[in-house]
Amino acid sequence: MSGSTLGKLFCVTVFGESHGPAIGCVVDGCPPGMALNESDIQHDLDRRKPGTSRHVTQRRESDTAEILSGLYEGKTTGTPIALLIRNEDQRSKDYGNIGETFRPGHADYTYTQKYGFRDPRGGGRSSARLTAPIVGAGAIARKWLKEKYGIVIRGYMSALGPVDIPFVSWDEVNNNAFFSPNAAIVPELEAYMDALRKSGDSVGARISVVAENVPPGWGEPLYDKLDADLAHALMGLNAVKGVEIGDGMDAARQKGTEHRDEITPEGFLSNHSGGVLGGISSGQAVVAHIAIKPTSSMRLPGRSIDLNGQPIEVVTHGRHDPCVGIRATPIAEALMAIVLMDHALRHRALCGGVASATPVVPG
Amino acid sequence: MSGSTLGKLFCVTVFGESHGPAIGCVVDGCPPGMALNESDIQHDLDRRKPGTSRHVTQRRESDTAEILSGLYEGKTTGTPIALLIRNEDQRSKDYGNIGETFRPGHADYTYTQKYGFRDPRGGGRSSARLTAPIVGAGAIARKWLKEKYGIVIRGYMSALGPVDIPFVSWDEVNNNAFFSPNAAIVPELEAYMDALRKSGDSVGARISVVAENVPPGWGEPLYDKLDADLAHALMGLNAVKGVEIGDGMDAARQKGTEHRDEITPEGFLSNHSGGVLGGISSGQAVVAHIAIKPTSSMRLPGRSIDLNGQPIEVVTHGRHDPCVGIRATPIAEALMAIVLMDHALRHRALCGGVASATPVVPG
Amino acid sequence: MSGSTLGKLFCVTVFGESHGPAIGCVVDGCPPGMALNESDIQHDLDRRKPGTSRHVTQRRESDTAEILSGLYEGKTTGTPIALLIRNEDQRSKDYGNIGETFRPGHADYTYTQKYGFRDPRGGGRSSARLTAPIVGAGAIARKWLKEKYGIVIRGYMSALGPVDIPFVSWDEVNNNAFFSPNAAIVPELEAYMDALRKSGDSVGARISVVAENVPPGWGEPLYDKLDADLAHALMGLNAVKGVEIGDGMDAARQKGTEHRDEITPEGFLSNHSGGVLGGISSGQAVVAHIAIKPTSSMRLPGRSIDLNGQPIEVVTHGRHDPCVGIRATPIAEALMAIVLMDHALRHRALCGGVASATPVVPG
Amino acid sequence: MSGSTLGKLFCVTVFGESHGPAIGCVVDGCPPGMALNESDIQHDLDRRKPGTSRHVTQRRESDTAEILSGLYEGKTTGTPIALLIRNEDQRSKDYGNIGETFRPGHADYTYTQKYGFRDPRGGGRSSARLTAPIVGAGAIARKWLKEKYGIVIRGYMSALGPVDIPFVSWDEVNNNAFFSPNAAIVPELEAYMDALRKSGDSVGARISVVAENVPPGWGEPLYDKLDADLAHALMGLNAVKGVEIGDGMDAARQKGTEHRDEITPEGFLSNHSGGVLGGISSGQAVVAHIAIKPTSSMRLPGRSIDLNGQPIEVVTHGRHDPCVGIRATPIAEALMAIVLMDHALRHRALCGGVASATPVVPG
Repeated sequence: MSGSTLGKLFCVTVFGESHGPAIGCVVDGCPPGMALNESDIQHDLDRRKPGTSRHVTQRRESDTAEILSGLYEGKTTGTPIALLIRNEDQRSKDYGNIGETFRPGHADYTYTQKYGFRDPRGGGRSSARLTAPIVGAGAIARKWLKEKYGIVIRGYMSALGPVDIPFVSWDEVNNNAFFSPNAAIVPELEAYMDALRKSGDSVGARISVVAENVPPGWGEPLYDKLDADLAHALMGLNAVKGVEIGDGMDAARQKGTEHRDEITPEGFLSNHSGGVLGGISSGQAVVAHIAIKPTSSMRLPGRSIDLNGQPIEVVTHGRHDPCVGIRATPIAEALMAIVLMDHALRHRALCGGVASATPVVPG
Repeated sequence: MSGSTLGKLFCVTVFGESHGPAIGCVVDGCPPGMALNESDIQHDLDRRKPGTSRHVTQRRESDTAEILSGLYEGKTTGTPIALLIRNEDQRSKDYGNIGETFRPGHADYTYTQKYGFRDPRGGGRSSARLTAPIVGAGAIARKWLKEKYGIVIRGYMSALGPVDIPFVSWDEVNNNAFFSPNAAIVPELEAYMDALRKSGDSVGARISVVAENVPPGWGEPLYDKLDADLAHALMGLNAVKGVEIGDGMDAARQKGTEHRDEITPEGFLSNHSGGVLGGISSGQAVVAHIAIKPTSSMRLPGRSIDLNGQPIEVVTHGRHDPCVGIRATPIAEALMAIVLMDHALRHRALCGGVASATPVVPG
Repeated sequence: MSGSTLGKLFCVTVFGESHGPAIGCVVDGCPPGMALNESDIQHDLDRRKPGTSRHVTQRRESDTAEILSGLYEGKTTGTPIALLIRNEDQRSKDYGNIGETFRPGHADYTYTQKYGFRDPRGGGRSSARLTAPIVGAGAIARKWLKEKYGIVIRGYMSALGPVDIPFVSWDEVNNNAFFSPNAAIVPELEAYMDALRKSGDSVGARISVVAENVPPGWGEPLYDKLDADLAHALMGLNAVKGVEIGDGMDAARQKGTEHRDEITPEGFLSNHSGGVLGGISSGQAVVAHIAIKPTSSMRLPGRSIDLNGQPIEVVTHGRHDPCVGIRATPIAEALMAIVLMDHALRHRALCGGVASATPVVPG
Repeated sequence: MSGSTLGKLFCVTVFGESHGPAIGCVVDGCPPGMALNESDIQHDLDRRKPGTSRHVTQRRESDTAEILSGLYEGKTTGTPIALLIRNEDQRSKDYGNIGETFRPGHADYTYTQKYGFRDPRGGGRSSARLTAPIVGAGAIARKWLKEKYGIVIRGYMSALGPVDIPFVSWDEVNNNAFFSPNAAIVPELEAYMDALRKSGDSVGARISVVAENVPPGWGEPLYDKLDADLAHALMGLNAVKGVEIGDGMDAARQKGTEHRDEITPEGFLSNHSGGVLGGISSGQAVVAHIAIKPTSSMRLPGRSIDLNGQPIEVVTHGRHDPCVGIRATPIAEALMAIVLMDHALRHRALCGGVASATPVVPG
């Protein structure tokens, strides 16, 4: 019942703090016999890691993952795969004064309330740094899903603060610092971020994730629905305040004739549902969107209190992401991969792993 | 790892189908010594039950819950509490033709894909009828949370399709068929629904839930965060497509100076966070919003296929809710109660049950 | 994390007390499509039920199980199967004085310590009556294991107090009140029990269970080993104080050359291991033995204290089993069935459900 | 549902193989605020480690544990504690031929059947080396139990093969290579082991563990009983074939008047129950015994088959423990500590953490 574990059959248990010796995870439940090595994992870690552009934190971490267990002769053994990432660039002094105050909007207040104290170095366990092991675990899941079912999981930034980013092409996503699927809008995003950094403020973002080729039939209808588990995983990502499946919040305003996805022998005519009906995958693309709040660490002063309850003004120096959403795309992909793999295994357990009914409408 | 269980320490396992002999649940993890009887549960069940206005399904169910276990001399014993609700008004013939076709947007397609067949009587297990046991379990949780911590959990409809419902007063919520907190808008809601029923279409809704007096410190920061578990539970409710905590999806568009809740010795100055920071309750009101899609059962014909993959037109007769959101408010309250109680117990386990830090800012 | 649930993928959640309205369970995780009706379950319930001979409690219960959910047209749907058994013959007055004292060796002392009070009627939740739902759930598991893998699970009494019962034949087991596999010894067992009842004392017993045709490869090597989960389930049965796999406690005294089961192309030459090596099934028969202590309810007075801590003498009247081991055989079989089915599903999840290696030595 | 995790609230997830880069574990659920450093853990690791006498394997491992996370300023933070132990003395060539054959009585046969292949280097994941992280996790649990409740957990060897070891004194246990509580018998044990090593055979052992000062009220009566969870953990230890609580298997032969522990205002008059009644701790010492089989790795040849199913003779060279029981005492203590801590936390969750009833009989 570990609160630090994601997944029930494909279980990822994450450990570590921003400025401790290391972060990592144990991945239990990966079937045996899959070829795996560190470079399979490093690719996604590199997409997430800090310091890759001027728009993200300048902390320098190689984020190199060592696989400690679970492999034999280059293949998974079916036993736990432990990933280890050493922290390299801890500059705790940057955070010297933070330990005595509460940043408005930051977890340091609630951690103190829960545990009686907190690790203030870089946010301790509440740091977005803890998403690195998740990206590593997600890389294992997406490799398995790809090889076994041809599933492809991709994400992109669909809005940066007030700037909507219309989807143009998957080909663009990895060509810019924002995971923008739209090359034309990138200069606007850069200008926005440059101005924001200068102002000392932070900003939110919207990320979208899509999984294609998911077989129909995955998800436990009550209560471990596929979409419920996606919501759990994605809302568990730092700074996420909203999760949508398919049309999401807009569904509240729609009529049934507008929302329902009609079916023909050639396939569904739309995908308002985001690929999930009654908590179970329909064979269409699984689509989720998340809203990431603006980070609470910023240079603009805010009213708060100190450990003694006295009023103070808080200003955060040190290295931060002015928009944590910029690096969130590979993490959201990883979370979707972990949830899908968990349900792939659950489907194997309960139903033998194959969609059992005909006809299967083309997704 | 039962897929039909909600909660890890306060565990609610739900069973039943719309037209089977009975529905119910087993509630495991309720501490001993709390006074409890069937009337404590019936009140909320009555708020959810069908047939209470012309705007909801006319199925007649008394939804009387029998407590089968877990009590001794009117008090909980600390052992499982089983709730049993007999189905009374099954008219399966209404659904005669449904078994051979797939309603667009309905779970009957995905159930068939997953299990190889399905129970077509009233939607079988995918029926919203299965929310009744959840309401029963939620009533137990809210009683305990109320007695132990003074927590009050209330919900309301915040939008019906295109009609926004500005919040006016909690006092109004239980005075109308919609759980509208705004008496002035009720005639508009009634007119909207009357027209909708006449048209044969269905519509979505937005529900908001608020828990007051939640102590700070509840929630496991990675990954069983309080908000992540709320998202899991609420997205697990039938027809929900989006879950928001606090400002929700709007957070993607905000700046940090706008979103962060500043703190003074007298308390927080705003509640954009919805009472959760870093996955842990802050002591402010916990606020969630959900979008409920329009039901897929409607009289307006839609294109679909039959069990042989042949194109057909589907029209759904029988008794349905044209807006399942109308009855969703007590269910959303129940789900929030269950999640909060689960985390209350988890906090007792890990941290001894009391917020450990000072100062505690007034919520 | 419900403490009342057995199994992780095939989950049995048990509710009820000896003298409450009903007992039962929810079985979640049974694959869809298996024919099932109440008579499949009743057969094993009848083998366990009280009042079938003079050697067991004379409480009269039909122990009729109603299936409340999880079936459609006579087949499992893959969703939870709820079993309900109404209590019929509660004579709580028999236990009138028990509520104020602690029977030496009985759970009423520890229940009071844990929960602050207890349900004294018939032992409340600590009653062996709670094994009836387990037998029902086990019947579902053994049907599935039989149909899917040809697995046969059978148990027998191997000792009644000081009387060893040498195994002769499975054919005898269901022909006597003791589940003795040895007809010749039955008169001795009857005489022993008649004398025991007359004396007012109680006695222990040893039960053995064997599962044949279990495929190799079931069990998670660390820490949900097949034998570890068997130990958990069997030690969880009322009054069990020891669990052995294969040679069990004798293994402590053996040399390696004596204990190891040598292998030839035709199969294993012995089965000291009880069919489990390294926590994983070997393909040989899975063999477990349990020791059941003498019941603490007896007519011979014992020293104890009352609720005020004052010394008293306790004598238990009412209806009891002088040897709870007599009815334990079908329960132990059910527990083994539940554990094996759980691991069958876990094997499907992780390894796809088929033993993957050759050669498979004949079991 | 990770199969590699022990505990539900105090969760220990173990990773690694005998000859991989490292072994370790993640301990989730340790309450915040307990002083902890590596030396707290190293003491028990040193008691378990190989190479400390001529009677155990000569593999040279420092078994130094690094704490990677979960500490801040020398105290636990309430978040996961990761322990890392690098493997240092892998001599995989010693096992060159083992990969192509199956040692009779060894897990290499069942691993191959389950996973399709296995890591033959030192037994891979089935190696007793994997007990080191458990000892580390157990050290954390016993420190917390000691500080919070004064609980003392100690074990000893109670039999070495045919040699019974009568208990004399706890003071002797750590003064000899066998964890024998009886100094006078040590020369006999040494002579026995010297002769055994010379013969090339292996032998079993019996280990006993006792926890004192366990409060009454710990354990979930159905089915996560304290004794059931102990049985699960202890049977999960490599080579264990039998688990007994209190009188254990002997209880099958006893009469009720003999087995029951009578109570007086001054306390219990005996402890046949081993401190557990109805699955719940009674306040008496919790007592468990385990039987450890003789290791299957030995120099005396045995009949077996190779990977092609052809008959062969197997002889195991390399470094092995001729009696794995010799190093098992600290492991069994650690397992009991983990289970007790898990139930301490569960009791806090459900019942608030304090025994609620009076009178509390002196244990």
